[in-house]
Amino acid sequence: MSIPHLPGAKDKRLFTPGPLTTSLSVKQVMLRDLGSRDEEFVDTVRRIRESLLALAGVSREDGYEAVLMQGSGTFGVEAVVSSTVAPTGKLLVLINGAYGERILQMATVHQIETTVLRYSQDTRPDPADVASRLAQDETITDVAVVHCDSTTGIFNPVEAIGRVVEEYGKNFVVDSMSAFGAVPLDLKTAGVDYLISSANKCIEGVPGFSFAICRRASLLATEGWARSLSLDILAQWKGLESNGQFRFTPPTHTILAFEQALSELSAEGGVAGRAARYRANHECLVRGMRAMGFSEYLPSASQGYIITSFLCPEHPHFQFQAFYDRLNEKGHVIYPGKVSGTDSFRIGSIGHLFESDMRALLAAIRETLDEMGVDIAS
Amino acid sequence: MSIPHLPGAKDKRLFTPGPLTTSLSVKQVMLRDLGSRDEEFVDTVRRIRESLLALAGVSREDGYEAVLMQGSGTFGVEAVVSSTVAPTGKLLVLINGAYGERILQMATVHQIETTVLRYSQDTRPDPADVASRLAQDETITDVAVVHCDSTTGIFNPVEAIGRVVEEYGKNFVVDSMSAFGAVPLDLKTAGVDYLISSANKCIEGVPGFSFAICRRASLLATEGWARSLSLDILAQWKGLESNGQFRFTPPTHTILAFEQALSELSAEGGVAGRAARYRANHECLVRGMRAMGFSEYLPSASQGYIITSFLCPEHPHFQFQAFYDRLNEKGHVIYPGKVSGTDSFRIGSIGHLFESDMRALLAAIRETLDEMGVDIAS
Repeated sequence: MSIPHLPGAKDKRLFTPGPLTTSLSVKQVMLRDLGSRDEEFVDTVRRIRESLLALAGVSREDGYEAVLMQGSGTFGVEAVVSSTVAPTGKLLVLINGAYGERILQMATVHQIETTVLRYSQDTRPDPADVASRLAQDETITDVAVVHCDSTTGIFNPVEAIGRVVEEYGKNFVVDSMSAFGAVPLDLKTAGVDYLISSANKCIEGVPGFSFAICRRASLLATEGWARSLSLDILAQWKGLESNGQFRFTPPTHTILAFEQALSELSAEGGVAGRAARYRANHECLVRGMRAMGFSEYLPSASQGYIITSFLCPEHPHFQFQAFYDRLNEKGHVIYPGKVSGTDSFRIGSIGHLFESDMRALLAAIRETLDEMGVDIAS
Repeated sequence: MSIPHLPGAKDKRLFTPGPLTTSLSVKQVMLRDLGSRDEEFVDTVRRIRESLLALAGVSREDGYEAVLMQGSGTFGVEAVVSSTVAPTGKLLVLINGAYGERILQMATVHQIETTVLRYSQDTRPDPADVASRLAQDETITDVAVVHCDSTTGIFNPVEAIGRVVEEYGKNFVVDSMSAFGAVPLDLKTAGVDYLISSANKCIEGVPGFSFAICRRASLLATEGWARSLSLDILAQWKGLESNGQFRFTPPTHTILAFEQALSELSAEGGVAGRAARYRANHECLVRGMRAMGFSEYLPSASQGYIITSFLCPEHPHFQFQAFYDRLNEKGHVIYPGKVSGTDSFRIGSIGHLFESDMRALLAAIRETLDEMGVDIAS
């Protein structure tokens, strides 16, 4: 039998796109078992759904609804894509990273007709391209984009794209997995019909479910379109509305942790407060990395403060796996790169991490470079 | 901000089909954050997959594989049904409860051709009926049955049905959600191709994922058949095989808790030990309930020891909601009935519950009947 890990023991710091480092208080609320039909649990779910709308700057009175969905963030995106594009619809997918590709992949599996605007991974989709594609192809009914594609860390111009999509009267789906809760976005200005995010990203909960903020009128128009039982977003909403309960067993412990995470987010000053901490983390990181001779993959203008891709230095002694392993042994978990055709690695600025953690990571990187005999400072 | 619930505080006892009461030690291992690519986490997942096969009495050498799937048990069943029935296949669904109906529903959403053998909810499917249906209809490729349908608590004759299914050379899918880990089943004798269960049932983990025990040869034959990205069981297996990682973010905390739960199950004597405790719980419950004048919905021969449906007594003062609420206030959570056309309620015998808990529940029921002025003892 394994020895239970003591609450006081220090875990490695996770500089990843998630699962992330979370506060001890978020994890501690998982030390109980609540029935999924229990009034206390039903009330928790109701409060969470209200808090999510408030965090998105919208409300039920404005015509928005929050729906929780079991599974990872991808399950939530697939739930929206597979439930809300009409049988005769066509989805335009804007792609500049792996998560845009994934939306295309799930639409394809569901035999949804698609068309694509694909960009290099260091380039943001141009709203003018979206306008001309929508003008050319009137059969397009829905447009999907990723808010922050953590393949690179790029921030896409969701509001500008959304204004174009709204002008053409199409449904707008935003995968805001790595951004929601720490990157301001005006859902109404951006004309967002569905925004999807997950428990274990910027809200700093533990992984186990995702959620969608939906424009109610759009959602109600999708009756009969779902292509799956479990991932039927309209049926899930109806279930939650009818008696406050999930159709199928919810991850009760994860949901309790999420309410605590939302309350800690609020105590930090909401989206603005969290954005400030993550930006400070990111800036501290980039300053320190540049000082050691590293450079970022993305131009600064499109680089977000969630996760940063750094180019692997061209030094004969630098080898990523050894670099990763040595940092891991020192208690710092970074992330491999995902940029196609470029040797890179990624460092996240999100989770229950502070500038002191970023400085500790930088010191460990400095030490590791010295151990490896890599001197890249010019 | 809500006040964190202290670990020592006593939660209500959950006499439900899940989420269940779990041990404190199972919950305590969730007090840490582990990266999903971390070697320690990857090793945990590998050990869990091996333990699940051992619990099922099979091994990789025998040609079986364990695949974990994010989401509730229904997500796991839908993953198997939607990924493993051929595009030209036809699924025979044996139905004597809500969970059989659910399998039919998910197959229908995925436009899988189906045929049904439907029984009254107090009647077990007859293997002879399966044989004659398979003899009549050669286009059937797959047969699905629920092991213990918790609608009533009935135990279905999986091994006898499985021998017929194997004789006809069809694939056999068993939804063993509420039974696996506490009800002995010989997968080889029963010719099971896919058995699905969940983290938060008889293994006594916390909810957040399900798993399938798959016959490898059957699984490998399903290439290209999946009708969803997230719920693609073959792709999920390939992902776990390639680098030990999940394709999409796993519920890391829930998975850590599950390994602890598996180790506590093993310490209790595995399936036999757990079955003995649950059976003792069930027998204690039924004895006590009968002594108070209650009777079970099912005949004893088909009643399993997982969950028991009791008929609502025909007494002018008995009202289920009041009965439920009063028990709830006393710290005992029972479950509403689900049998169509019959007033009933359910009491589970599973989870981290012992005979002392059953006796405490019986005392609370006695007290509640007195409070309500209900005397039904003959």
